[in-house]
Amino acid sequence: MTDMTDPAMNGAESLVHTLLAAGVDTCFSNPGTSEMHFVAALDHIPGMRSVLTLQEGVATGAADGYYRMAGKTACTLLHLGPGLANGLSNLHNAKKAGSGVLNIIGEHAETHITLDAPLTSDIQGIARPVSHWVHTSTDVASLGRDAAQAVQAANTAPGQVAALILPSDTAWTEGGVVAAPLPATPRADFDRSQLEAAIAALSGPDSLLLLGGAALTEANLDLAGRISAATGCALLSEWANARMERGAGRVSVARVPYPIDQALKVLAPYKRIVLLGARAPIGFFAYPGKPAVLTADGAQIITLAETGSDLAGALAALCDATGAKDKAPAHVAVASLPDKPTGPLNPDTIAALLGRAIPQDAVIVDESVTTGRGFFKATQGAPRHVWLNNCGGSIGYGLPVAIGAAIAAPDRKIMALTGDGSAMYTLQALWTMARENLDITIVIFANRSYRILRGELTNVGVGNPGPRAIDMLSLDRPNLDWVQMSRGMGVEAEAVSDCDGLEAALQTGLASSGPYLIEAIF
Amino acid sequence: MTDMTDPAMNGAESLVHTLLAAGVDTCFSNPGTSEMHFVAALDHIPGMRSVLTLQEGVATGAADGYYRMAGKTACTLLHLGPGLANGLSNLHNAKKAGSGVLNIIGEHAETHITLDAPLTSDIQGIARPVSHWVHTSTDVASLGRDAAQAVQAANTAPGQVAALILPSDTAWTEGGVVAAPLPATPRADFDRSQLEAAIAALSGPDSLLLLGGAALTEANLDLAGRISAATGCALLSEWANARMERGAGRVSVARVPYPIDQALKVLAPYKRIVLLGARAPIGFFAYPGKPAVLTADGAQIITLAETGSDLAGALAALCDATGAKDKAPAHVAVASLPDKPTGPLNPDTIAALLGRAIPQDAVIVDESVTTGRGFFKATQGAPRHVWLNNCGGSIGYGLPVAIGAAIAAPDRKIMALTGDGSAMYTLQALWTMARENLDITIVIFANRSYRILRGELTNVGVGNPGPRAIDMLSLDRPNLDWVQMSRGMGVEAEAVSDCDGLEAALQTGLASSGPYLIEAIF
Repeated sequence: MTDMTDPAMNGAESLVHTLLAAGVDTCFSNPGTSEMHFVAALDHIPGMRSVLTLQEGVATGAADGYYRMAGKTACTLLHLGPGLANGLSNLHNAKKAGSGVLNIIGEHAETHITLDAPLTSDIQGIARPVSHWVHTSTDVASLGRDAAQAVQAANTAPGQVAALILPSDTAWTEGGVVAAPLPATPRADFDRSQLEAAIAALSGPDSLLLLGGAALTEANLDLAGRISAATGCALLSEWANARMERGAGRVSVARVPYPIDQALKVLAPYKRIVLLGARAPIGFFAYPGKPAVLTADGAQIITLAETGSDLAGALAALCDATGAKDKAPAHVAVASLPDKPTGPLNPDTIAALLGRAIPQDAVIVDESVTTGRGFFKATQGAPRHVWLNNCGGSIGYGLPVAIGAAIAAPDRKIMALTGDGSAMYTLQALWTMARENLDITIVIFANRSYRILRGELTNVGVGNPGPRAIDMLSLDRPNLDWVQMSRGMGVEAEAVSDCDGLEAALQTGLASSGPYLIEAIF
Repeated sequence: MTDMTDPAMNGAESLVHTLLAAGVDTCFSNPGTSEMHFVAALDHIPGMRSVLTLQEGVATGAADGYYRMAGKTACTLLHLGPGLANGLSNLHNAKKAGSGVLNIIGEHAETHITLDAPLTSDIQGIARPVSHWVHTSTDVASLGRDAAQAVQAANTAPGQVAALILPSDTAWTEGGVVAAPLPATPRADFDRSQLEAAIAALSGPDSLLLLGGAALTEANLDLAGRISAATGCALLSEWANARMERGAGRVSVARVPYPIDQALKVLAPYKRIVLLGARAPIGFFAYPGKPAVLTADGAQIITLAETGSDLAGALAALCDATGAKDKAPAHVAVASLPDKPTGPLNPDTIAALLGRAIPQDAVIVDESVTTGRGFFKATQGAPRHVWLNNCGGSIGYGLPVAIGAAIAAPDRKIMALTGDGSAMYTLQALWTMARENLDITIVIFANRSYRILRGELTNVGVGNPGPRAIDMLSLDRPNLDWVQMSRGMGVEAEAVSDCDGLEAALQTGLASSGPYLIEAIF
C-alpha cells in the first residue's frame, strides 16, 4: 500500500483511514466539540469499533487492557488538555506496563489557541510525562503520515504511549492523505555481551533467573522452567506483571512480594541474579531505615535482556548453552483446587474460592491490593489463565483494564478483582461494561478502608495513629453500597459476606454472558 | 511572628504548623504511603480540618469552591504524580477561575527517585501546565519557608494554583522550621493610562462596560450600575464567572451567551468596550467559517483593569470622573418570582422552578450546560444569592466545587445544578458530601445525552449525523439511575419528572440540613 490522496477527504477522514490501514480498529472515546469531525468520520467510515466511556481514565485504562490481550494498539479519543489529564494516571500505568496506547487528543484550531480560550492548555506539556511520543499535527496533508508514525511508535516493543494532538482545523480541512502503514520496529537483540556471565551465574539454588514482561508467556516460561531444571537456579517474576500466563500444566513462577520485609527475605538467598525482561528489585516506596534495593548485599546482578528486547531469543540462547533444551521443565503447576472453605470471608477463604472458580482461559485483572496477597498461590493449580497486574501503582486501573481485555478477548471470561478503595477511582467503567454487555465478573473486596495504608502508616514509623489519621484511611462513614451503585449504572449485582454466598455468586457471574458485580463484604 | 526551630520537629510537622500560621486550615485529601507523615502530623496537631475524598478531582475542585466562598486558600494532599494527575482537570478550571489552591503532593524520598519505582513520574512536569508556582522541597530546614511562599503565591490576586512537592524523607527528617506567614501580595493598580480613554468610551447605548472576576461583588456591581446610569453604557459579564453576587436589590448583569451566533448578536451593537476584570470576548471553540473574536468588527476595546488588579479602584475612578457617584444605580433587580409552571419538565419550566426555590444567601454552583441556558434570567429576581460558573470548561467541576463552597460557607444553602454527563466525571463527590453531612441540594438534569455536543456537531458543519455518531453522544443505553448511585454513596435521593415533583423535591432538599439529590428526568 502507498499513500493515497483525495482532495475531498478532510483530515479527520484521512486519520481514520490511516488508523484502520495500520490495524487500529478500536477506539475508546470521550469526545467533545473539538473532536466532532473525528466522530463524524467514524460515523461514515466503517471498521472502527467505538466504545464510549464517561470518564477518560476509563478510556485510557481500557486501551491498556486491550493491548495486553490483543497485542496491538487501540486508540483513545480525548477532549483537549483536561480530557487527556483525566486519563493521565491510567496512561502512567500503561507506560509502566509497556502497553501500546495511541491517544488522539483534540486541540483548538491553530488561530484559536492564541486567544487563550477557557479550554486552552499546554496539551503537549500534559502529555509528555506519560508519553514516549508526542506530536501536534498542524497540516492536513501530513496528518496521515503523523498517524502512521504514531501507530508505529505505540507498537514499538514492549509497547509505548503515543500522543497525537489534532487541531480541529486540521481535522476539518480538505486535502487529506491516507498514509500506508509503517513497518513494525523489530525488537532489539538481547545483550549478547552478558550471555557468558549469565550462563556462569545460573548455577544452583543461590542463583535466580528473574523474569518480567514478555518472558511470562507460556512458551517462554517453558524455556525458563527447562533452564531451572538444568541449572538448579530459582525462578521468580517481578511483583507487578503486565501479563502472565499461568495455571495447571504451565511453569509456575512466584512474584517478589510487595511488603518490603517479605521481599528482603525472599531475595536474601540469591548471590547471582540474571534479569530477563525484569528490572533489579527495588522497594515500591522508601521507608525510614530500610533499604530501597531489595537484593542481598553484594549480589551479582546481570542484565541479560531489557524488557523491550528479544526475550525469547535470550531464553533460547540460555537453553542451548546450559543443555536445558532436552530437560523437562521444572516447577510445572499440577492441576489442583483448594479445599472448599466455609464460614466468613477473609483473604484466605476468598483466595481459596477464587482458586476453585477460575475457568479455563480466564483473564484475571488483579487490583486486589491487600486482600489479594495470597491469591497467587491459591490459584496456581487452576485451569490455565492469564493474570494482569497494575504495573504503575496508580489505583483505579482494574475496572477499565477489564473493559479493554473483554473487548480484545470476547471469547474469554474476564474476572476483575479489586479493592473498594481502588474501584472508586474509576467506577464509571461499570456503565461502559453494561452498554457493551461485556463478559466481566467483578469482585469488589469491601474492607471499607484504604487497608494498605494502615500497614504503611506503621512501615513509615508512625506508631499508634490517632482517630484523625485513621479517619483519613477509612471508607466506612458512610459505607459504600456497591450493589446500588452498580445497578445505578446498569450492571446486575449482589452482596455476599460468607463463603457459600461468594461461591454461589461467582457461579452466577461466570455463568452470565454480561457484566456481574459481587460485593464481598468482610 | 518569626520563624521557629525545633530540632525534634519533623518536616511534615513544620509544614502543618506553617500552613496553620498562614491561615490555611482546610485540607482536601486523598493520601497514599508517601504522605503518611503528613497524615500523622495532621493527627496530633490540632486546627486543620481534613476532608477525605475518594478521587483527587473531588479534592482539587473542592479547594476551588472553597476559595471562591472563603476568599482564602485551602490545601489538597495528593499522592505523587498520578494522584496529582487525577486532580489536574479541576485545577485547570481553578486556574481559569482565578482560584487560589495549594496542592501538597507527596514524592518519593530523594534516593528512591533515581530507582524509577512504579509510582515514579515527573511530578513537576505534570504540575506545570496547571500551576503558577511549582517547587520541590528537598531540605527539611527550608520546607517551612517553601510552604509560606506557596501560600503567598496561592493567595496572589485573583488567586493562583501552587504545587508544593514534598519528598517523603523531607517529611520524616527532624529539624523542621515553622515559617512566619509572608505578607499578602497587594493587587496591582489598574491601568491608569487607559482611564481617560475608558471615560471617553463609556457613553451611550453603543458602549459597553464588560465585567469579570472581583468586579462582580455586590459593592462593585453597585458602582458599575451607577456608571451605567451616568453614561448610558451597557453592562455585561463574561459567560463564565468565578463568583457573581446577584438577586433582588442588586445590580443585575447578563452574561455574554455561550452559543456563538447569540454571542455575536448580543455584542454587535457595541462600538466601544471597556474591560474591567474581563477579557475581550472570544468563542469557546473555533467553528468553520465563523469568527473567533466575538466583538463587532472595528470595535474599540480598552483594557482598563486586568482581573488580578484593583477593580474596585478602577470602578471608583470611573465613578468619580463620570459623576456617577451620586446617581442611583441602573439595572437593579426587582424582587419577583416566575409564575408557577406545571406539566412536564423542560429547560424553561426547570428555570422557573429554580427561580421560585432559591433561598436567601444561597450559593448556586452551575454546571447545567445546555439545560441552564435560561436559568440566569429566571432567577434574577430571586432573593440575593451567589452564582458560580465553570470558568475552565472541563466538565466535572460542579459536585466538587459544591463541597468546597459548603465547607467555606456552612450557614448557607448550596445548590449544585449539573448535567448528568458532567456529574458522572466526579460522582465520587457524593460520598464526601454524605460523610461531612454538607448542606447541598443537588439537581441532576438527566437528559441522558451529551446534549451540548448534538448542537456542536451541527455547529462544526456535520449535518445529518448517523447512528454511530449519535451513539457517541448518548447516555441512554443503559440509562443512569442517579437515585441508586446516590444512595449507594450515602446521599438520600429521589427522581422527578414533572413540575410538581421537582417543586416538592426542591422543598425537601432545601429543608434538609444534609445533602439531597434530585434526578430531574426530562
